[in-house]
Amino acid sequence: MDSNSTVEESANKIEDEVARVVEQAKDLQDSAASLISRSSNDEQSLRQRVLSLDSSIRRCRSLLDSLLSHKLLDSKLADKLEEDLHRARCIMVDGDAAAFLPTKAQGGFLKMFLGPINVRASRKDVQLKVKEEYNSYRDRTALLFLLFPSVLLILRSWVWNGCLPAFPVQLYQAWLLFLYTGLALRENILRANGSDIRPWWIYHHYCAMIMALVSLTWEIKGQPNCAQKQRGVQLFLQWAIMQGVSMLLQNRYQRQRLYTRIALGKAKRMDVVWGETAGVEGQLWLLCPILFILQGFEAYVGLLLLRTAFVRVVSEWQVIFCGILLVFMAAGNFLNTVQTLVAKSRFKAKMKRSKSKQELD
Amino acid sequence: MDSNSTVEESANKIEDEVARVVEQAKDLQDSAASLISRSSNDEQSLRQRVLSLDSSIRRCRSLLDSLLSHKLLDSKLADKLEEDLHRARCIMVDGDAAAFLPTKAQGGFLKMFLGPINVRASRKDVQLKVKEEYNSYRDRTALLFLLFPSVLLILRSWVWNGCLPAFPVQLYQAWLLFLYTGLALRENILRANGSDIRPWWIYHHYCAMIMALVSLTWEIKGQPNCAQKQRGVQLFLQWAIMQGVSMLLQNRYQRQRLYTRIALGKAKRMDVVWGETAGVEGQLWLLCPILFILQGFEAYVGLLLLRTAFVRVVSEWQVIFCGILLVFMAAGNFLNTVQTLVAKSRFKAKMKRSKSKQELD
Repeated sequence: MDSNSTVEESANKIEDEVARVVEQAKDLQDSAASLISRSSNDEQSLRQRVLSLDSSIRRCRSLLDSLLSHKLLDSKLADKLEEDLHRARCIMVDGDAAAFLPTKAQGGFLKMFLGPINVRASRKDVQLKVKEEYNSYRDRTALLFLLFPSVLLILRSWVWNGCLPAFPVQLYQAWLLFLYTGLALRENILRANGSDIRPWWIYHHYCAMIMALVSLTWEIKGQPNCAQKQRGVQLFLQWAIMQGVSMLLQNRYQRQRLYTRIALGKAKRMDVVWGETAGVEGQLWLLCPILFILQGFEAYVGLLLLRTAFVRVVSEWQVIFCGILLVFMAAGNFLNTVQTLVAKSRFKAKMKRSKSKQELD
Repeated sequence: MDSNSTVEESANKIEDEVARVVEQAKDLQDSAASLISRSSNDEQSLRQRVLSLDSSIRRCRSLLDSLLSHKLLDSKLADKLEEDLHRARCIMVDGDAAAFLPTKAQGGFLKMFLGPINVRASRKDVQLKVKEEYNSYRDRTALLFLLFPSVLLILRSWVWNGCLPAFPVQLYQAWLLFLYTGLALRENILRANGSDIRPWWIYHHYCAMIMALVSLTWEIKGQPNCAQKQRGVQLFLQWAIMQGVSMLLQNRYQRQRLYTRIALGKAKRMDVVWGETAGVEGQLWLLCPILFILQGFEAYVGLLLLRTAFVRVVSEWQVIFCGILLVFMAAGNFLNTVQTLVAKSRFKAKMKRSKSKQELD
């Protein structure tokens, strides 16, 4: 009887415990469901408020413009009001409310590869982390960008007697394809997270992806007359080394911009935009000539490829295609670099104007 | 004086409005910050509760096992308790609380391409939508999988006189590379969203990606003796057509499983798992032989490629590599299909046992 009662006891105990666990699970389900519905309601109402604030700012701005154009407003006051509106916009766009701004459509590229998932981080610090990780990814790839073609060119003259074997070059091209796909995906994600990256730089990576793909199908010809046949590949590798240098410089520049933004954002969030060009003036003057030289070299490689195709009647379509693509990319890069510089100098002029005015006051 | 006062009036009006807008922006920032911190606290506490429930279920289960092994528990009661525990687990894993389960590590593949973003949807309906979209993506690609190689083979015999030109085949290989990359990314995302997809099917797509990449570097040889040189390509295309058929069948099967789950989930969420194999019995008997034939054919194509490489001494490394990869993939597919079938039949036997017991009771 004693043993029987022990069994009953332990059976009762576990029955109770299991019943408690089932109850806990049901409670948990209820809490989770209510939390999810509550926070989706809260988010919805914040989204409404963000939208209405956005339209208020627009209305004020157009009113201000019309008053100014009819000379119904003192220009000093107008400047002050404009600055206030800008400040309000910065709070909305750079602050915590940014998570509730209407989402930019994520674009076909992400949808094609990832399907309809949401890649937008709702918290500002996570967004900044994504951006920082992108920068350090670019750093790592820039080093490989320098190393990979350098090693190929060194081995070519020291080990391979001036004639590149197909496999390492194809490995390099496959790596390029993988790299550009990753960059394009990450940049699309950055855009979805509110980055103001110019669309061209993403298109540029699409072009680079296509070129890497095409170059994979392009047979690497060897002997006889290897130096002449591989002239295109060799030029391409030299261009890639320069690309690596410019990527490293660009990364330095972008990272300092980001750190300045983060630091200013912590200190006083609404001043974030004022710090855009602080502390990186000197580097821009080093960066720009290198970028322009690189773009010139890119176009030169493209034209050389085209000449190879038309003068020596090489029938491979890949040569013509890559040539045209390189020239197109060089032109696009040049135009967009110039546009960025113009926008930057305009912004700087405006800042200077408003600063000197404030100092006069 | 009258005009002056109008100016002042409108200036005052806009000053007030701008001040109000700035105030609104600050309020919005405060609300957004507090909502974000509040919901992150709530989520944290739910995460804690989910963890503790999970460990409670584990504890009960091990207690149950030890009681059973010492024959200290009536087996009927043990079955009932085990079922309760299973039910509690289902509520936790399939219900709204699932959003707060500890995240599976997202895996190197996603991190490599996307960086450290979170691809997990927090709401169950969004997760199901992701899964549904994945299925319809697979449907679309399965059709192309049928069409693309069929058109190539038809054109080969009707237009190209039995000799495939390089460009369309390379286009097809590039499409395969793109497709498999997309599938691998999407499947990793599904896994992060709690899908129980077997890791092998994702590895399989990694292998297929590598093979598509390698086949792009593989020169398509033409005349003379085209039929013999292109034997491998031709076999590969025939295999791809069969693959398309099996993908369509698999999709039908998977979709019915998903719809059953969604329907059951709506009706009574905790019964979700019981419906796993409902209504799709018949199709499995059609699907399995086709899968096995396909796997056999995959291995056959791989072995043929290897024979080509060793007998006719084709020096291209791509032939050997693709041959080994195909045989490896076929073996892996076979093993995993068998394992899935065994797991399914075990699950079915268990369900039958517990059902007949319930009916006896």
